[in-house]
Amino acid sequence: MALVVQKYGGSSVSDAESVKRVAKRIAEAKRAGNDVVVVVSAMGDTTDELLDLAAQITPLPPQRELDILLTAGERISMSLLAMAINNLGVKAKSFTGQQAGVITDAVYGKAKIVDVVPARIRETLDRGQVAIVAGFQGVNRASNDVTTLGRGGSDTTAVAIAAGLDADVCEIYSDVDGVFTADPRIVPTARKVDRLTYEEMLELAASGAKILALRAVEYGRRYGVPIHVRSSFSNATGTMVAGTHGDLIDPNALTSTAQEAGVEAPIISGVAHDRSEAKITVVGVPDVPGMAARIFEVVAAAGANIDMIVQNVSAAHTGLTDISFTLPEADGPLTLAALNGVQKEIGYDSLQFDDQIGKLSLVGAGMKTNPGVSARLFGALRDAGINIEMISTSEIRISVVTRADSLDAAVRAVHSAFELDSSEGEAVVYAGTGR
Amino acid sequence: MALVVQKYGGSSVSDAESVKRVAKRIAEAKRAGNDVVVVVSAMGDTTDELLDLAAQITPLPPQRELDILLTAGERISMSLLAMAINNLGVKAKSFTGQQAGVITDAVYGKAKIVDVVPARIRETLDRGQVAIVAGFQGVNRASNDVTTLGRGGSDTTAVAIAAGLDADVCEIYSDVDGVFTADPRIVPTARKVDRLTYEEMLELAASGAKILALRAVEYGRRYGVPIHVRSSFSNATGTMVAGTHGDLIDPNALTSTAQEAGVEAPIISGVAHDRSEAKITVVGVPDVPGMAARIFEVVAAAGANIDMIVQNVSAAHTGLTDISFTLPEADGPLTLAALNGVQKEIGYDSLQFDDQIGKLSLVGAGMKTNPGVSARLFGALRDAGINIEMISTSEIRISVVTRADSLDAAVRAVHSAFELDSSEGEAVVYAGTGR
Repeated sequence: MALVVQKYGGSSVSDAESVKRVAKRIAEAKRAGNDVVVVVSAMGDTTDELLDLAAQITPLPPQRELDILLTAGERISMSLLAMAINNLGVKAKSFTGQQAGVITDAVYGKAKIVDVVPARIRETLDRGQVAIVAGFQGVNRASNDVTTLGRGGSDTTAVAIAAGLDADVCEIYSDVDGVFTADPRIVPTARKVDRLTYEEMLELAASGAKILALRAVEYGRRYGVPIHVRSSFSNATGTMVAGTHGDLIDPNALTSTAQEAGVEAPIISGVAHDRSEAKITVVGVPDVPGMAARIFEVVAAAGANIDMIVQNVSAAHTGLTDISFTLPEADGPLTLAALNGVQKEIGYDSLQFDDQIGKLSLVGAGMKTNPGVSARLFGALRDAGINIEMISTSEIRISVVTRADSLDAAVRAVHSAFELDSSEGEAVVYAGTGR
Repeated sequence: MALVVQKYGGSSVSDAESVKRVAKRIAEAKRAGNDVVVVVSAMGDTTDELLDLAAQITPLPPQRELDILLTAGERISMSLLAMAINNLGVKAKSFTGQQAGVITDAVYGKAKIVDVVPARIRETLDRGQVAIVAGFQGVNRASNDVTTLGRGGSDTTAVAIAAGLDADVCEIYSDVDGVFTADPRIVPTARKVDRLTYEEMLELAASGAKILALRAVEYGRRYGVPIHVRSSFSNATGTMVAGTHGDLIDPNALTSTAQEAGVEAPIISGVAHDRSEAKITVVGVPDVPGMAARIFEVVAAAGANIDMIVQNVSAAHTGLTDISFTLPEADGPLTLAALNGVQKEIGYDSLQFDDQIGKLSLVGAGMKTNPGVSARLFGALRDAGINIEMISTSEIRISVVTRADSLDAAVRAVHSAFELDSSEGEAVVYAGTGR
């Protein structure tokens, strides 16, 4: 008998029929002898509809009130799901984030979980009942007000509850079968990956993969929670995220498929892509010390989350240089306005805004110790006639920026160059972001 | 400076525009120097939509889960309203029933308020802010679970919060101008009543008037909370419900119009009507002691709320009698089934179910001491050719059952006979139920 935490996203509970379908799956897990805790998101587009309502009232709602509003979504889905499970003859009770003991800080809208005290969940399990927990929300203990964890917060709730209960596995259900070697909409030959380390999953999530929230992976890594990414539409094994490269995985925490995959992780995990970023170039910056620092002070004050930075070599005869950086496209307007405000102070020539970029990221453990990887990546892009505009690397990732309309071809070329669609590699990439 | 509790029903906050309109009214009350607490219902048809969702999942949802589901409605309206008020430059904070300190028993679906501990509301007022409170809901302190108070629960929340804060007045806003001498849809000459005692309002509410929930009036009477029933679409004075017949009303708690109306309450307050009941007749009951008791034991066990009862005089030669009673039409099927189950035991002949009845109630203090009232009532119905099927009376009410298709004519005839549409009477009746 295992203690299983299951998380179902909004697309798995979009209407009464799908709520009933998910209830059946939960009842089966319970009847198979497991202790089952379920974390559920708001139904379908509920959260967006509530945000629309708020936008009709005011462009700048107080964040405390917005959080109260948004938590209504999970309140609806969790109680309906509990009803549906009870209707199948399995006892189930639903709990808000507050009732489930999800304690957060006071940063409304993107609160961080500071503690999980799942006393009522434990008590419910002890009575042989299924506990349903509202995802995405918690309580600020100081004020007794509800908070939300930001987008993807339900994944984080699930992993945090799993950690708090010392669960055997945290299953994240969505409408795809797991993590793929690339977005199957772009690369039809992409294959599902059986196993990823936390680090690989972190890089994939940070590089545009949306199947699992970055914070949930971080939480899972910190507390060693095995995360099973799988489809709510099938019983197939998905992708197990657990362990660190080279670690021995606890076989009890893994499905048989993941065990067969063994501990010899492949070099390349997959190809992620991201179309949600834009590039700002500050043209003609005086090449004197402190100028870059000043620019990024201004950008940070505007609240933008910078990803990659490139500074051209200064042309000797002008003493001027160009500085380019990428950021979420949505942060563009505020950032441009902030930079405009300091044009005289910095003395740059002009600003360029480019939202037609795409980012490709190759992720895999052991990449740094394999110098051939970057050569192979660049060669594949060259052979496909694709120009590279920016490059950044980490220990287990290489990212390149291309034109947005070259991105699909770039993903296919790289996926193929690393033999990810053949049976030879043990490669993996992630379902991309889409936009 | 007064402490005012305002309650807005679902029709006053049916969409973003009406939420903004209500916010303006609240901001004005605050800027006029009052301390303002607002109790709000779920937007428009939200509660019905949530009930529909639950019905799609299961015909018999666990009541605890249904309560959690339904409380989402007020969570949405209260946070949107708080946003809209803040947007007008007036600070406002919203609170769930639990946060507002509305403590109830554990009877999910129709919980009773057992205590109000409005510490956070008081604190919010002390900071000069408007407090918005979710109507219709509370918390069962023993289990820390949310409860709902049943239909009309938001009125009760408002009066209970007003009592807990010792407020100067509780204003109940809806889309009608106050309590009328009859439903203006039936009697176009019906007039708004300026003032009613709690007892008169209780009888009107119990007789089919829906403008104010019966429980809220009971609560108001027990704690002496003046209740001002008025329209959210105008600034006109509505109907003040306060005091007992013959009492001196605290003039501070009343509007000037209510003061002018004085303490000499008229004999007749108004004509209420109700189409929501049905009549069951148990035909051919052996006229031996204990039979009626046995029948009503069975009916009570089926959960039906009986209103009027008539037992015919036993026909001497048969030793059989008929027993008729009225009850909410919705309770009919279960009650008939329960009576069917004891036909042999009781030995009655047959059951008749009649859902084509209407009930007219004439309400007014001092009625019992005016024997001419019932004569005038019956005479008016006779002159209009309307047959009376059942009669029941209380200290300040006479109710008669007629055919449903005669009810409108009956209301008009009685309204006219008591000169309620002339300027001579100070009469009052209530907006009827409609169905």
